[in-house]
Amino acid sequence: MAGIAGEAHVLVAAGDLAAYAKDWTRDLVHAPSAVVKPRTTEEVSRLLAFCDGRRIPVTPQGGRTGMSGGALAVHGGVALSVERMNAILEIDEGNFVAVAEAGVVTQTLQEAVEEKGLFYPPDPSSRGSCLIGGNVAENAGGPHSAKYGVTGKWVLGLEAVFADGRVTVTGGKTRKDVAGYDLTALLVGSEGTLAVVTKAWLRLIAKPVAWATVFAPFPSLAAAAQAVFEIHRRRLVPSACELIDRPSVQVSSKAKGIGVPFPAAEARILLDFDGGSEDEVERDVTAAGEILLTCGALDVALATDETKRRGLWDVRRGIAEAIHDLGVSVELDVAVPRSELVPLVEGVRRIAERAGLHPFCYGHAADGNLHVRLLREGHGALETSRFDEAVKGIYSEAVHLGGTITGEHGVGLILKDLLPLRRDAAFLAAMRAVKQALDPNGILNPGKVLPGQTVRQVQNQG
Amino acid sequence: MAGIAGEAHVLVAAGDLAAYAKDWTRDLVHAPSAVVKPRTTEEVSRLLAFCDGRRIPVTPQGGRTGMSGGALAVHGGVALSVERMNAILEIDEGNFVAVAEAGVVTQTLQEAVEEKGLFYPPDPSSRGSCLIGGNVAENAGGPHSAKYGVTGKWVLGLEAVFADGRVTVTGGKTRKDVAGYDLTALLVGSEGTLAVVTKAWLRLIAKPVAWATVFAPFPSLAAAAQAVFEIHRRRLVPSACELIDRPSVQVSSKAKGIGVPFPAAEARILLDFDGGSEDEVERDVTAAGEILLTCGALDVALATDETKRRGLWDVRRGIAEAIHDLGVSVELDVAVPRSELVPLVEGVRRIAERAGLHPFCYGHAADGNLHVRLLREGHGALETSRFDEAVKGIYSEAVHLGGTITGEHGVGLILKDLLPLRRDAAFLAAMRAVKQALDPNGILNPGKVLPGQTVRQVQNQG
Repeated sequence: MAGIAGEAHVLVAAGDLAAYAKDWTRDLVHAPSAVVKPRTTEEVSRLLAFCDGRRIPVTPQGGRTGMSGGALAVHGGVALSVERMNAILEIDEGNFVAVAEAGVVTQTLQEAVEEKGLFYPPDPSSRGSCLIGGNVAENAGGPHSAKYGVTGKWVLGLEAVFADGRVTVTGGKTRKDVAGYDLTALLVGSEGTLAVVTKAWLRLIAKPVAWATVFAPFPSLAAAAQAVFEIHRRRLVPSACELIDRPSVQVSSKAKGIGVPFPAAEARILLDFDGGSEDEVERDVTAAGEILLTCGALDVALATDETKRRGLWDVRRGIAEAIHDLGVSVELDVAVPRSELVPLVEGVRRIAERAGLHPFCYGHAADGNLHVRLLREGHGALETSRFDEAVKGIYSEAVHLGGTITGEHGVGLILKDLLPLRRDAAFLAAMRAVKQALDPNGILNPGKVLPGQTVRQVQNQG
Repeated sequence: MAGIAGEAHVLVAAGDLAAYAKDWTRDLVHAPSAVVKPRTTEEVSRLLAFCDGRRIPVTPQGGRTGMSGGALAVHGGVALSVERMNAILEIDEGNFVAVAEAGVVTQTLQEAVEEKGLFYPPDPSSRGSCLIGGNVAENAGGPHSAKYGVTGKWVLGLEAVFADGRVTVTGGKTRKDVAGYDLTALLVGSEGTLAVVTKAWLRLIAKPVAWATVFAPFPSLAAAAQAVFEIHRRRLVPSACELIDRPSVQVSSKAKGIGVPFPAAEARILLDFDGGSEDEVERDVTAAGEILLTCGALDVALATDETKRRGLWDVRRGIAEAIHDLGVSVELDVAVPRSELVPLVEGVRRIAERAGLHPFCYGHAADGNLHVRLLREGHGALETSRFDEAVKGIYSEAVHLGGTITGEHGVGLILKDLLPLRRDAAFLAAMRAVKQALDPNGILNPGKVLPGQTVRQVQNQG
């Protein structure tokens, strides 16, 4: 493999491998046998052909910021890190398209396009360190998907390498293209199990010129959810629409040392608006403020300047870190139809209480996408089986409400055996058939996404 | 098969089959051996299992308004018409979702959701007779895709039946869902070759409350294209953005008996704007008018009332019919990056002139999606081979400019052997592998989309 990527870019020492053994789940540790960091698509192609012939597992890695273990080399073999393929190849202002290699950091791309007055909306919270290739593989979301949709909505085309080393380009700068199956969309969100994405053509829009943030406490979760419903019914489309429950606000504000008014408020709504003029955004934000008050908001805080807006976001942004420091569970990522958000939170509380757990709920309300963390009393005193049962209960509840077990984190390692909760037998069979069709030797990211799939046969043959 | 769908819903008499042998290509005629019109998903499932077991080709049919022969039973067998599965099952105002069976007429759905103040934007020009199932299968476009994107952007989930009769549901009312491969997106645009779509969950938005239309003649095509570029650069997003060349305007206005000012204008631009308030639309349309004049428009006509707007659209709407009555070629449907529209039209003219043909060009400028018709001097005097060569030259030119051979009509029958112009070997191999994985006996819409694919082996086995 040193002959393919260069000796300096193949790591095999245990000390070097450690960094590539973890992601943002933190609890999961799976070291690859080697890390290979190709610089070109041709190197990726040669590496895959080499590994496919020898039945060596290949796990594509981006920024390793995933929340579902999707980029961990659970069966050893090669971790293929795209970090060195980090060129922004073009920002085409005429066609509103950016062309980026898979290893470009999302925020780096965003800043580069914004310098040209353009805008790439997808904003996973890891955007400072996650990579475009990983965003594509996971179909990453983020707060902005409330208005702009998830990563996949912005992908016009991909360059990708199949397991046997063959390279394809699935699209480009053309906005409409129905020539054959939509392989772009099939690869987006396939979590590196069907091909390795090496390059992406990304759709851009004009950068908004004005922004505003609204933050409002509510006496009850139901009132807050009703306000989100009313906001949308009244034709307002916030660019972010977050719901945060009282426990999450408490732990975050405490960790950050920020005082938050109305500490007893059961729920808070955080809205962003953006637009093409200050007038437009002011109109939206004023209308939103009135709706929130009509729906029972205890108070409404508005901010249009960047520093104050960041202040309103502080509590929301601090949640994950603060909760994690309490030593609680991985972040669940269920999603339901918007109308089912209150029943979902009620279900989460019922299930948690029954198991003696404390739930924290926060997430992207406009998308019905709720993140849940469960705190064990006494840090681990609870038997694992009861904890796992509660987690599974929450997934089942989301599906029961017409929703799904993952809205934006992906299936990866941690959800693959729960996928049958969400997908019927014919769907799972079709997934397996597609996987078998495109990666017949099963070398690409084995042990992920597909329930029960393991790399055993691969290892036996290798 | 009468035992599955009921005797009244199985047609075998030649007279009954004739209507199911044609689509809007008009020149193509391929009668099925039988037409079956199931009413339920269960009937579709039983029918497919029956045909799969006996290797009988099944060609799904919607409104038979396709422009690429995709719904014609070129290898005989069963035409599965979904026309009786025509219930709008739900319009969920809280979640902005419509649930419709595959046989619902697109315009019928649009009118039903608009009655509730909601909006389903995709608007193929056949919307009065095409069906949702066909729109999904073809990933249909239309003028509105300038702002709103094609059908696929609005599909949240599908109920679909695989070749062996197994039924799956790929999504639903949840807006974010990354649990497994995106089979919804894989089935959208697969032209009935991977599964039969029986039901769709469609995303809706609030209905715009104001509309305006702008129509402007330009002395040159280049000036008109530059105006389209400027419109978008200045952050305006028209809900339709059509470009029409002089020959197309001439033939349409003559056929309709409408006088059009500035008859010598080489190009015309037709823009629609919609929005949440009359003020907003007026601002947009005024700004657009100024930009058009700055870019060299000879005149700008504005209309906000429905009747006058329809008047401005008359010439555009009449083109296809008027040109077809001249007996010219099927409508080509090439698409390129927006910036390449002028080079594309220039290429079309060069190729046509060389072959002694007269080109008509019109289409969706914001999407770079150009429709072309070629008029043979003396109606058919030209040898077919030279005509076909010119057509192929235009497809090649579009691909050469970074574009594609079909922006919204689909590959169907007429483009399948040209698909390698647009798709590389790895892409085609992946398509074939996916087709083989999901329809191993090749019964679903054989002879379509995939180059060289025929049903021969199916007939031998049947």
